[in-house]
Amino acid sequence: MSAPVYLDHNATTPVDERVLAAMLPFFSARCGNPSSRHEHGRVALAALETARQQVAAAVGAHPTEILFVSSGSEANNLFLKGAAAAYAAYGHPPGTLATSAVEHPCVRNAARQLARQGWRHLELPVDAAGRVTAAGIAAAIREAPALWSVMRANNETGVLQDVAGIARQVREALPEASFHSDAVQAFGKIPLDFRALCAAGVQALTLSAHKIYGPKGAAALVVDKRLELAPLIAGGGQERGLRSGTENVAAIVGFGLAAELAASRLANLARHLEVLRARLEAGLLAQGAMLFGGEAPRLPNTTAFAFAGIEGETLITKLDQAGFAVASGAACSSASPEVSPGLTAMGIPAALARGAVRVSLGADNTRQQIDDFLLALQETRARLRNLAPHATENATNGA
Amino acid sequence: MSAPVYLDHNATTPVDERVLAAMLPFFSARCGNPSSRHEHGRVALAALETARQQVAAAVGAHPTEILFVSSGSEANNLFLKGAAAAYAAYGHPPGTLATSAVEHPCVRNAARQLARQGWRHLELPVDAAGRVTAAGIAAAIREAPALWSVMRANNETGVLQDVAGIARQVREALPEASFHSDAVQAFGKIPLDFRALCAAGVQALTLSAHKIYGPKGAAALVVDKRLELAPLIAGGGQERGLRSGTENVAAIVGFGLAAELAASRLANLARHLEVLRARLEAGLLAQGAMLFGGEAPRLPNTTAFAFAGIEGETLITKLDQAGFAVASGAACSSASPEVSPGLTAMGIPAALARGAVRVSLGADNTRQQIDDFLLALQETRARLRNLAPHATENATNGA
Repeated sequence: MSAPVYLDHNATTPVDERVLAAMLPFFSARCGNPSSRHEHGRVALAALETARQQVAAAVGAHPTEILFVSSGSEANNLFLKGAAAAYAAYGHPPGTLATSAVEHPCVRNAARQLARQGWRHLELPVDAAGRVTAAGIAAAIREAPALWSVMRANNETGVLQDVAGIARQVREALPEASFHSDAVQAFGKIPLDFRALCAAGVQALTLSAHKIYGPKGAAALVVDKRLELAPLIAGGGQERGLRSGTENVAAIVGFGLAAELAASRLANLARHLEVLRARLEAGLLAQGAMLFGGEAPRLPNTTAFAFAGIEGETLITKLDQAGFAVASGAACSSASPEVSPGLTAMGIPAALARGAVRVSLGADNTRQQIDDFLLALQETRARLRNLAPHATENATNGA
Repeated sequence: MSAPVYLDHNATTPVDERVLAAMLPFFSARCGNPSSRHEHGRVALAALETARQQVAAAVGAHPTEILFVSSGSEANNLFLKGAAAAYAAYGHPPGTLATSAVEHPCVRNAARQLARQGWRHLELPVDAAGRVTAAGIAAAIREAPALWSVMRANNETGVLQDVAGIARQVREALPEASFHSDAVQAFGKIPLDFRALCAAGVQALTLSAHKIYGPKGAAALVVDKRLELAPLIAGGGQERGLRSGTENVAAIVGFGLAAELAASRLANLARHLEVLRARLEAGLLAQGAMLFGGEAPRLPNTTAFAFAGIEGETLITKLDQAGFAVASGAACSSASPEVSPGLTAMGIPAALARGAVRVSLGADNTRQQIDDFLLALQETRARLRNLAPHATENATNGA
């Protein structure tokens, strides 16, 4: 094994070389501030608007529905806090908000901040396969949440939620509610149609560039204009007054092209990923792994698994040494190695959840890499089994 | 006049080629997510920490005091709203906050959002030269604001505030108050010493990369750790839990090097800018321009001026056609061509303030460009004078 094999595309992706090439002029020759009313500014503004059209086209939205922000976390916080602030502006006391129990930490923790301000936070339970349950939705609807956020695809397991179906139910029962979906992991891997989602009652969608071979630093909240929001970042009035601050033009230009490329290769990429993942999962099952969310419809690129008795942290460290980059739990919260709340919500016992490893495949991965990974995994597990008695021996012999 | 001459460096600056070169690997080969616990992640994390040291060193801060965010506007909003939320978390009802009357729109409008939530917003008046007045500070102190924000250098006029002196007064009278300074325009143009400012009572400072020949998309709030803040963006816990979201690694790497370069060339750059500005202002005065804030200590690169009877918008459009990029009012709010609140606060009549043009010089500007600009300005004004009667004639002749 020579060059390290990157199998962690749900954490981040390399920037496509065409995307980087499109970005480069905006660091120097075309470095204007889009708010400037001279040629440099107009060039930058035109580039922003092109990117807005590209992102909109990739998800079936209108360009005026795209708000550029700096990250998926910002977009998710903007929906929850922005809609909560707009709700409060009507003189309402803090209300109720509902999120699924498997949301990304940026939804969970933003909801917790609102809870400290008096909002009641309901977590929609999921079944053993990681799907939000019908009973959970029905129970939540009886509490009449004003805000809802249910992700399209989970970052750890790839499990898909029937967002349109849930939104339809919510809208029927609670026509005043605001409904958002974090589509960061879904974007570029499965089709997304904001017009159709909107028709079902989804008013906002989060997208991010760096998960689709675009740069870090650009993301979007796609918003139905009937949704009322207060800005998280007030100031010069950029992005229709909903997100002030000088736009990250180069990154947004990259996001635009990355979105266009993602949409154009979606079908081929999904097929490629499915084939690789089937091979990977067959190999994992043959080695005795347990798959998380394996029974549910999932993203074509994501596999979360564990081996009983092996810590995920240990496994990913050994695999890293062997040249394979995989994740334990969600990368965005890998800094805090507690048990994943998402896996816990699926009813997975803590001992097993601590073994969780995530492989997330990408466009450049090959069959050979999957085979190499499976071999390295087998060798690593064998070595860990051999090490374990030694460790015990040392412990008994040692001081 | 061939290539356009860029004289709008307070709006944004081109990325230094060394900075761009340092950023490039982080788009592809080193594209890891700093939260990932494998080699790709560690490389990205190490790069973040190097950048943190570089930014800290450039302003005399400790690396642990640097919080990376996406823009100066975000940093300013994070201070005001984050400190207000931390204040509220103690069960206090909304308090009073004080900002200068010449702050950037992102401070003014964030303060207005807090005002809608019940905070009382005091604006510290400025004198005709744009300096916060001693009487205004004394009067504000009597109202005991919990939060203060006074910029180090103004974006439109370059006028400096004695931030350390004001902070010292505030701390003496109100030891519990939190004091912040927006140093976005000061950074790289005059020395900044966070340790010294901290000793005077300044607990937070805003810096931005794209004003110092770094990229858009990276900025920092430098914070004394005794300052309590709630995050604007909650999530995976990045930046000590105060700013979640995958870090914009490439931009932050660029910010780090840009900060280092800015500190190393500060004295030389300031001298270069002062010489050019003296030449520019002598020429402007010879043409009968009025300078705004000319009597106050100012940044070495900024000149705001007007000619009676000529709209700033008209002038910058004509100068743009002649190949010179300058600003009317602050670029960040150029999209809304109302009279600048900062100039209004200086007591400048609306008719004259509407004539405001800002020239902000940068490292690459030359004496020749200043001379060319002055000539173009003279010709433009002459043409406008000649056009004016024609315009009247046409108006009288026309239908």
